[in-house]
Amino acid sequence: MAPITLYFLQASRSIRIAWLLEELKIPYETKFYWRENNKAPPTFKTESGSPLGKAPVIRDGDNIVYESGAIVEYLASKYDPDHRIIPANDDPKYPDVLQWIHAAEGQILLHALSITYATWMSPPAVKESGGFDKLLENLSINVVRDFDWLEGELGKNSGDFLVGNTVTGADIMTAFSARFVLTRELGTKGKTWSNVNKWLKKCESTKTYQDAVKKTGHSLDNGGNKPQ
Amino acid sequence: MAPITLYFLQASRSIRIAWLLEELKIPYETKFYWRENNKAPPTFKTESGSPLGKAPVIRDGDNIVYESGAIVEYLASKYDPDHRIIPANDDPKYPDVLQWIHAAEGQILLHALSITYATWMSPPAVKESGGFDKLLENLSINVVRDFDWLEGELGKNSGDFLVGNTVTGADIMTAFSARFVLTRELGTKGKTWSNVNKWLKKCESTKTYQDAVKKTGHSLDNGGNKPQ
Repeated sequence: MAPITLYFLQASRSIRIAWLLEELKIPYETKFYWRENNKAPPTFKTESGSPLGKAPVIRDGDNIVYESGAIVEYLASKYDPDHRIIPANDDPKYPDVLQWIHAAEGQILLHALSITYATWMSPPAVKESGGFDKLLENLSINVVRDFDWLEGELGKNSGDFLVGNTVTGADIMTAFSARFVLTRELGTKGKTWSNVNKWLKKCESTKTYQDAVKKTGHSLDNGGNKPQ
Repeated sequence: MAPITLYFLQASRSIRIAWLLEELKIPYETKFYWRENNKAPPTFKTESGSPLGKAPVIRDGDNIVYESGAIVEYLASKYDPDHRIIPANDDPKYPDVLQWIHAAEGQILLHALSITYATWMSPPAVKESGGFDKLLENLSINVVRDFDWLEGELGKNSGDFLVGNTVTGADIMTAFSARFVLTRELGTKGKTWSNVNKWLKKCESTKTYQDAVKKTGHSLDNGGNKPQ
């Protein structure tokens, strides 16, 4: 079997895939990229083959796969015959795991990144208008609702992880979203969610997550740019 | 088999699921909801069981599934033994279809909805600052890049649909995103993409799509609010 290559951009969704590869004990090699001015460097696009230059990307033999949710499903489908990461479709946990895999992007990051984009893209006239803080406050409403929802769902679960008592695709996709939003304070400043914090610490203390961090150098510090 | 119920909110991602149910010839009943002030009415949340009140939702026996990408995968997994909608994992088309299923939300709508949110959430001071048009123009850069990418990928494909020559989950997820963004002119005003237009017309002229529209009343007019 050709080894899998993970094109890993610092401070990005790439950590999801490294964690999953460790969980599934799939051999892989990592190509690491620092950001330049918070963005993927041009070499990321040319070397990974991703048409949009977005991370992560994997190569597995002839297959190039991008979009982290697609990569999680691809790897689970090919290399997880026991359905640990995505339950079999007759398992009552199956719809839950699928839903989190999609909500990690389609709810949580959709709402939080609207704050990032408004911040990056606002010209000085908007930032100095006296209404910019109100815009950010309004945008945070959706984010707080999403975290309240996540908090409540974690509260209903008797297990340590998002769906049940073992790491699934739900954790792999959603933990990055939650940690990223909390670290960047995208609408969450001054608020805490105890179930979310406890669950994130549990995820991040697994040996597989720690091994992924060691192997890739993942960190959210410094915007992903190379320290000076 | 208990019939599937589709909780269908007007002018929403719900049309994706109606189209898929028609493609797979799965019997279903529809519960239809008009929007109120552009939002899902409170009855949508209470009746569908979706904790966030977001559409679409399906019930299939004991399973409640939400997030349209999750619903597509759930239905394909359970009711598409021939793998028409999502190719089998040894089919070279499999990664492509997965990637579009995720990119429909994680790229296209992520970028376009940042324009919707900035518009909805900006207080008068921002809208009257003299910089608001520039903010929208800056936000449109990502949208145009996404459509250029979609246009290019469609240009490489010799078939009528996004991946190959038949409707797949790639079309079901992505066509709604593209049509929604073009209709609402979220960063696309004044621009056209000929491959995208041709492909959307092909999708929307399939008998299954037309049957889904007839059955559900889907339309993007009037913001999904009941005509006066």
